Amino acid sequence: MKPKGTNLTWHGATVTSDERAAAMGQRGCVVWLTGLSASGKSTIARRVEQLLLERGHPCYVLDGDNIRMGLNKDLGFSPADRTENIRRIGEVAKLFADACVITVTAFISPYRADRDGVRAIMPEGTFLETFVDASLETCEARDPKGLYKKARAGQIPEFTGISAPYEAPEAPELVLDSAALDVEGCANAVLAALDARGFLAR
Amino acid sequence: MKPKGTNLTWHGATVTSDERAAAMGQRGCVVWLTGLSASGKSTIARRVEQLLLERGHPCYVLDGDNIRMGLNKDLGFSPADRTENIRRIGEVAKLFADACVITVTAFISPYRADRDGVRAIMPEGTFLETFVDASLETCEARDPKGLYKKARAGQIPEFTGISAPYEAPEAPELVLDSAALDVEGCANAVLAALDARGFLAR
Repeated sequence: MKPKGTNLTWHGATVTSDERAAAMGQRGCVVWLTGLSASGKSTIARRVEQLLLERGHPCYVLDGDNIRMGLNKDLGFSPADRTENIRRIGEVAKLFADACVITVTAFISPYRADRDGVRAIMPEGTFLETFVDASLETCEARDPKGLYKKARAGQIPEFTGISAPYEAPEAPELVLDSAALDVEGCANAVLAALDARGFLAR
Repeated sequence: MKPKGTNLTWHGATVTSDERAAAMGQRGCVVWLTGLSASGKSTIARRVEQLLLERGHPCYVLDGDNIRMGLNKDLGFSPADRTENIRRIGEVAKLFADACVITVTAFISPYRADRDGVRAIMPEGTFLETFVDASLETCEARDPKGLYKKARAGQIPEFTGISAPYEAPEAPELVLDSAALDVEGCANAVLAALDARGFLAR
């Protein structure tokens, strides 16, 4: 999509990314969690945020519910709206990462093409696709909001895993096996990956 | 506008706003600059950002050009698109402020109703409407991008101040008189206002 606006110029940032990283004590990136409903994305994201903030690292979680109530409240769940939903979230995550905030997103984001679209707009190496790997059986057994039950009863159309596809990542930067790791283990794995990739250093 | 999505619940934040403020060393807010093209909004915003980051305060600038190239690249300049442009920016600014980042926006944002719409979604006291007060004559004399010249020649339709209205704020939290103050003076006035309102303390 080409910008419709004209008369645009990029402002030369008066703050360089190195200066910003030094001021913020870290480098910005997006930890993009993807997985089925009830796989644990939001819970893991919130725990990562808490652990990072406790260590003085600016972090923020974008998740479906708070984005859906605000920025994307004009969007429904049609395929086109789902794609626009993820596109906007990707653009917002990019802004947060540019602000040098470690940004954790928690969306099912079932389509590879949509996730690849976000990867494509991010600076090289700053998009960490993270597969929260939990089987449909596990997620359906948890069903904390009763959504799977409703979906099986035909009350929710196009429910990921039941009546709509989930396309698992092919080469994610990180896989969190929620059968092997609890929430704390998953959150620590994310922190270790951030540290190993140098995002927690100036 | 009511959210179209259903099956939504707000996640209880595991990090409280006080905990976040303590971790970030400040409280989040939005300094919403409004004024004519060439009034100095982006320049002031960038200087505020630089001064705050130098002091270790997380700050980020949202401006028309970088937003227009990304999040809002599907929007043009019709009245409806201008309103949606400001609505989305307001929602993004709200997320940044919620992340405890001092957020400075630099958009003409000529319509009172649009700015009031942003104020309405922000937590009480965290929206600082800031009028960058420069006369049309001053702005047109500067004309750094030659836009006023083009607008006078009829080459840009609906140009704010020439062929589209600018509705000045009626009760802004801050007025920056760019005839009396230079960029440094304006930026320092913003910092003083932030400090006086307690945003730079935990």
